[in-house]
Amino acid sequence: MIVILKKNAEQQQVELFDNWLHSMGLETHKSIGENHTIVGLVGDTSRVDIESIMALDIVETVKRIQEPYKNANRKFHEQDTVITLSNGAKIGGGHFLVMAGPCSVETEEQIISVAQAVKAAGAEVLRGGAFKPRTSPYAFQGLHEEGIRLLLKAREATGLPIVTEIMDAKHLPLFEDIDIIQVGARNMQNFELLKDLGKLRKPVLIKRGMANTLQELLMSAEYVMAGGNDQVILCERGIRTFETATRNTMDLSVIPVLHQFTHLPVVVDPSHATGRWELVAPMALAGAACGADGLMIEVHNDPEHALCDGPQSLRPEKFASMMEKVRAIRPYADRSFTTGEGALG
Amino acid sequence: MIVILKKNAEQQQVELFDNWLHSMGLETHKSIGENHTIVGLVGDTSRVDIESIMALDIVETVKRIQEPYKNANRKFHEQDTVITLSNGAKIGGGHFLVMAGPCSVETEEQIISVAQAVKAAGAEVLRGGAFKPRTSPYAFQGLHEEGIRLLLKAREATGLPIVTEIMDAKHLPLFEDIDIIQVGARNMQNFELLKDLGKLRKPVLIKRGMANTLQELLMSAEYVMAGGNDQVILCERGIRTFETATRNTMDLSVIPVLHQFTHLPVVVDPSHATGRWELVAPMALAGAACGADGLMIEVHNDPEHALCDGPQSLRPEKFASMMEKVRAIRPYADRSFTTGEGALG
Amino acid sequence: MIVILKKNAEQQQVELFDNWLHSMGLETHKSIGENHTIVGLVGDTSRVDIESIMALDIVETVKRIQEPYKNANRKFHEQDTVITLSNGAKIGGGHFLVMAGPCSVETEEQIISVAQAVKAAGAEVLRGGAFKPRTSPYAFQGLHEEGIRLLLKAREATGLPIVTEIMDAKHLPLFEDIDIIQVGARNMQNFELLKDLGKLRKPVLIKRGMANTLQELLMSAEYVMAGGNDQVILCERGIRTFETATRNTMDLSVIPVLHQFTHLPVVVDPSHATGRWELVAPMALAGAACGADGLMIEVHNDPEHALCDGPQSLRPEKFASMMEKVRAIRPYADRSFTTGEGALG
Amino acid sequence: MIVILKKNAEQQQVELFDNWLHSMGLETHKSIGENHTIVGLVGDTSRVDIESIMALDIVETVKRIQEPYKNANRKFHEQDTVITLSNGAKIGGGHFLVMAGPCSVETEEQIISVAQAVKAAGAEVLRGGAFKPRTSPYAFQGLHEEGIRLLLKAREATGLPIVTEIMDAKHLPLFEDIDIIQVGARNMQNFELLKDLGKLRKPVLIKRGMANTLQELLMSAEYVMAGGNDQVILCERGIRTFETATRNTMDLSVIPVLHQFTHLPVVVDPSHATGRWELVAPMALAGAACGADGLMIEVHNDPEHALCDGPQSLRPEKFASMMEKVRAIRPYADRSFTTGEGALG
Repeated sequence: MIVILKKNAEQQQVELFDNWLHSMGLETHKSIGENHTIVGLVGDTSRVDIESIMALDIVETVKRIQEPYKNANRKFHEQDTVITLSNGAKIGGGHFLVMAGPCSVETEEQIISVAQAVKAAGAEVLRGGAFKPRTSPYAFQGLHEEGIRLLLKAREATGLPIVTEIMDAKHLPLFEDIDIIQVGARNMQNFELLKDLGKLRKPVLIKRGMANTLQELLMSAEYVMAGGNDQVILCERGIRTFETATRNTMDLSVIPVLHQFTHLPVVVDPSHATGRWELVAPMALAGAACGADGLMIEVHNDPEHALCDGPQSLRPEKFASMMEKVRAIRPYADRSFTTGEGALG
Repeated sequence: MIVILKKNAEQQQVELFDNWLHSMGLETHKSIGENHTIVGLVGDTSRVDIESIMALDIVETVKRIQEPYKNANRKFHEQDTVITLSNGAKIGGGHFLVMAGPCSVETEEQIISVAQAVKAAGAEVLRGGAFKPRTSPYAFQGLHEEGIRLLLKAREATGLPIVTEIMDAKHLPLFEDIDIIQVGARNMQNFELLKDLGKLRKPVLIKRGMANTLQELLMSAEYVMAGGNDQVILCERGIRTFETATRNTMDLSVIPVLHQFTHLPVVVDPSHATGRWELVAPMALAGAACGADGLMIEVHNDPEHALCDGPQSLRPEKFASMMEKVRAIRPYADRSFTTGEGALG
Repeated sequence: MIVILKKNAEQQQVELFDNWLHSMGLETHKSIGENHTIVGLVGDTSRVDIESIMALDIVETVKRIQEPYKNANRKFHEQDTVITLSNGAKIGGGHFLVMAGPCSVETEEQIISVAQAVKAAGAEVLRGGAFKPRTSPYAFQGLHEEGIRLLLKAREATGLPIVTEIMDAKHLPLFEDIDIIQVGARNMQNFELLKDLGKLRKPVLIKRGMANTLQELLMSAEYVMAGGNDQVILCERGIRTFETATRNTMDLSVIPVLHQFTHLPVVVDPSHATGRWELVAPMALAGAACGADGLMIEVHNDPEHALCDGPQSLRPEKFASMMEKVRAIRPYADRSFTTGEGALG
Repeated sequence: MIVILKKNAEQQQVELFDNWLHSMGLETHKSIGENHTIVGLVGDTSRVDIESIMALDIVETVKRIQEPYKNANRKFHEQDTVITLSNGAKIGGGHFLVMAGPCSVETEEQIISVAQAVKAAGAEVLRGGAFKPRTSPYAFQGLHEEGIRLLLKAREATGLPIVTEIMDAKHLPLFEDIDIIQVGARNMQNFELLKDLGKLRKPVLIKRGMANTLQELLMSAEYVMAGGNDQVILCERGIRTFETATRNTMDLSVIPVLHQFTHLPVVVDPSHATGRWELVAPMALAGAACGADGLMIEVHNDPEHALCDGPQSLRPEKFASMMEKVRAIRPYADRSFTTGEGALG
């Protein structure tokens, strides 16, 4: 951490500041210039509150050098995290994982038939929503408990592990048998929920919020990991920009950047990022090419009658043809920042 | 709602679509052009799911004309909502309300002394955080239950009603005696929490999320109001943009636009929007000038030692001088879209 | 175009409006609802000024259905545009074109050596800046006339056609022998320059501005095409968002979306989009995977001593290894919206 | 400037780097930590190219402390710049200036009648467009030479100085008698044009680009000032964000921030920022309240028949009533960062 002191900072206050930093176990190095004094803080600054320092009268500005996350930081954990699921599927360290299924669970027949279809095409995890965050209180909100029950039925029928979204910590008991718990974009900074998920010992998939920086995404992972749960998967699903031709702007450059910053696996969700099924395959291929560790894809056997997000769902046959191309591209993907070898499935 | 059909839409499918719409009590009017057929939907379309229609094969695009919110809509509730607090203070309909206090409650002495100072300067509500949403799991997270207790002590001492933030519905019992419950920007679309707040019969202040549109803010208000709680206050606190000279970009044009769309009172929080105390007074005055119904201001007796957000807190004397200017400007504020008369306090 | 009239629009004014529309050769279809009257305009509305209509007292809102561009519109020109260069290289219609070279032309030795290196690796066009748009008036602004001369020398030496940026129409005489004239992101809406380029009969490459929508990009292409020059190449090079981990946010979903809207070829420039050489290869592969018609890549033999943009330049050997992967991925690229067959080079 | 060296930077390369910096007249101070070495650069770093340093292998990151602009920097020019026009009107240093008039000049009668109306209401400069930047090549592009002639006629008739936009340096001869030359948002980084304007000795008004940071705006001012022309006025007219309820997002917090960074006067243009006449008065008042040095307002005697931007134009009587409120608010405006006294007109 670097602190720039004001030109006219009082000597006495500077000494008090020095003493305070030393009391936290930090060393200080000063460079005194004509217009500014630069103080370099040496030691573990990850727990120093940058705002407290910025509030001091003698301080002009503060810049953090060391990242404020530790558990999620590749600097302190060089090897890629690899997560293994009940069916033996793996993600991270060169293992590529595809999660697919409908936006919402609707009926037993629907979820089982989609599960079979995506499994046949190569998906290794079934996705499906039981609790749906909807902008409107008047829109379909999901089947809730019944939806979870149907997902578990589909697991029974196909062997596919389940990923599904939680919207409130009070529903945690319902998620006991779920394989991967998803935190949606709107809850990425629901810190109370993240703390509760940190107490579990099962994979948590965190979607990046629509206005959240990569550092904030990593800090949300850090909330879960600080609780002792180190099975975290990150997911890019588009950010809010001025462009309206797509629902969100899919920020694919986060894939290599996240691989540089963290050892956690990173997947992309082109269905939510673009909001239009025609764009799902091109963006899934692009995600694979730049080194994503997996995909999350909406597939529906009858998108025209889906109870939500129909326009962004692929039919099973389109999904299957996309999967073939993904497999072809994966061996050539750029994974310069990861430590794992490339591998599909 | 207007639906544009594709050029080559099959006649039979168009008829099925027509029948489906009629079955929902909607009338349809068609304009058949060379390249498109335009279908106008007449009737109550607020509960029609735009996504279901967009998923149909025969549909090129859909545009909503009628707003998807009803309870919060000025079209259906022309008069400004006026909310009255325990000390007789009012907001809305021309009543201007200032809420002020520290970011975090720290000690009994601190909160009472700040409460007395802001009351003396003209604030009518005390703000203070007991539960603090912090990006880092390692940062101070608030005094929780003890913080609520200290806020209530400060109310006892000064008579000022309390506004404080809730982070999870499980803490609701602690908020029983709180006057205004605040939903923070990061929880604006925590729909489960909003539903629980809809069951209460006390004021809820909803802050706009950093990447949320005005329509989404109104839909979050609608979640609370759909539950029967119509005491909702909206708050602008800055949005995320590319500009880094301020923490967020304070979007003041939302004030007149929201007054046009809704009858609910709207306040601005320049402390969080700008992140720097020097910008708080100018932006508070700007907010008052363009017709805000109130302000939310961070005031701390000792910003240099504040446990959070020190850099954005005003000292009490700065706050007092800002309040004088606010009072001078208020009578000339532009409130063209509201039905209330201008009044301060 | 659809016009929504206000509930209480005066009948007489509505008739005047009708007559005015008819006088422009448009037919109108009305749907009269309880709250709104919807007027559908049928005919060629591409030259109707949406703002004039919006200013009318009787109008609540206007929505455009037909795109405001014609020459660039795939609806009116279904076949992919294919552009052929002096060395026989092609772009569009399934032909993939790689343009590479240094940010700035520095010396004869430098530009020729880089040209030879990129040609050896498979690039078919040499890029290099003679006029450099720099944020600071104190930064190196390019070699200007001398830079153009050196580029032409490199063409002589290698046979590679040249693409280079123009910053002002007054420099056009210097560009007479240049093969592709580039309009930079900051000049995307320099309409006077675009009009002048419309008078030429040589390829123009237009980079998307950092805050410009796809429709605005297409309208800028339309400026050139309206002048009779139909050899336009579009280029995505990143947009401005709140994220600061990369210089810009590379918006790759524009590739399939542009292919849907227009028949013009689309390339991506990952060097400027990301600002960091480590991200160039992953993002180039991603661009190829989602169907781009080409790449624009900065390559420098000595990035540490480059006079500008060194941090985003690849060394020739990295470029060569990237090109191999691009060639491997191209056959599997998703090009669902284009009419051409996939082909590399 | 602060340079963070990599952990494993070679000693020999560090020495070469040191020597290079010293050769530019800079002193270096080093703080050697466990993970990083921090190098503080002391001296005039405004002409050091941050990119060249970032490209070095031994460098992890570079952070600028000193601003890269000098002429526009309040640190080197503490007193507010005051600009005086031919009619004695002043802007800056506490002088408030209102510029008003139609978007486009249409006819002699129109421009003179609007000029008389805005003068009567208190405007001291007439605005009007002769060259209009239009997104569509098919839209009305302004009267060009004839428009300039009509503006000068209106000046003759009313004594009001003229501000009008230039779109290309080749038109400069037509602007010889114009009082203030405006650079539009789309040309803010048309550096060739800025250089040409730097050779003049008359006021230049630069509008902030829709995706440009404050620092970039100041660098564009620096381009003009580096040429010796120090009469620069800055203008905020809204930035591009995800919000679509207004045309742009008016970023009013730039007013106090710019006053802190620069001595140049700053005005706001609520007409272009919001795109809707109903929002112009509230946002003009807000701009005045937070300390703007002036306003730029579109006024049209017949907005319904305006040839461009009708929806954002005020009628003269609305403008007059807005001006009364502006005059009432101005004495209470917050101008903490400026050195001038508050004054209207």
